[in-house]
Amino acid sequence: MHCSIARSFGVIGDPWKALIMRDLNVGITRFDQLAEDLGVSRKVLTERLNEMIADELIERSPYQQNPPRFDYVLTDRGRDLVPAVLTLMAWADRWLAGPAGPPAIVVHRDHECHAEVTCSTCGERLDGTDIAGTKGPGGQAGPGTRLIGRTLSGPGSAG
Amino acid sequence: MHCSIARSFGVIGDPWKALIMRDLNVGITRFDQLAEDLGVSRKVLTERLNEMIADELIERSPYQQNPPRFDYVLTDRGRDLVPAVLTLMAWADRWLAGPAGPPAIVVHRDHECHAEVTCSTCGERLDGTDIAGTKGPGGQAGPGTRLIGRTLSGPGSAG
Repeated sequence: MHCSIARSFGVIGDPWKALIMRDLNVGITRFDQLAEDLGVSRKVLTERLNEMIADELIERSPYQQNPPRFDYVLTDRGRDLVPAVLTLMAWADRWLAGPAGPPAIVVHRDHECHAEVTCSTCGERLDGTDIAGTKGPGGQAGPGTRLIGRTLSGPGSAG
Repeated sequence: MHCSIARSFGVIGDPWKALIMRDLNVGITRFDQLAEDLGVSRKVLTERLNEMIADELIERSPYQQNPPRFDYVLTDRGRDLVPAVLTLMAWADRWLAGPAGPPAIVVHRDHECHAEVTCSTCGERLDGTDIAGTKGPGGQAGPGTRLIGRTLSGPGSAG
């Protein structure tokens, strides 16, 4: 599908995969630990890990030879996805946390942190307004983009 | 599940819902337009729209009385999720776009824009390193968080 939103959800849209990335990022890196933390069957966990390896989000790093045992670690591609997952977490903290407050707090270096989304050009915080789209070089009409390719016909025309 | 990442994927993890949000944001707001753009069955589209209304991401806004016809519009909660979806799009533009380049370009006000993720406290761009977690007030051990609640035992301890 010629849409980067669809492509990203194709890779990470499964909730288990987002939770695996969360766990790897805080040092829960071994199969048994992941299975215990997530409360998911070994079959499902194996499937998800293999898909994430195929998608180059994670890779196996051996920590023992005989029998072979691995840590699962984020690749550069996978680590680059962590901030995007943190913005989803920040949104759910704002809207779905309930009276008890957020389940976890992000720490960046030595300070508490909420992931914010900003514009790469002007640095302003993006809040979902004043955002439009225009067709990119890889744009193409097809399932998932039949109409939007015409809607995104030129800069500023689609807001 | 006591995890804001799991909660956010529970609401938006379905790729069709992310694409519906994309379309609403650029002015594709009517049922027939959405069905045409996404190439999805009317049954699936109806289900997804109804779930998104129940989750308070979108609402119906009547534009005709007889017969009744609606635009689907983002709620405040749904609009606040758009920037997070844009960070997933930016990631897929970087890693999955292929030689043709990104399918679409985001326009913020009058300039091209990539969604970046920054720290609310220090303003630095987050790249997935130097990020740890600590237990929040709403944290609780359970499926999806059996081990991580112990791992996130104090500030800075989980990196």
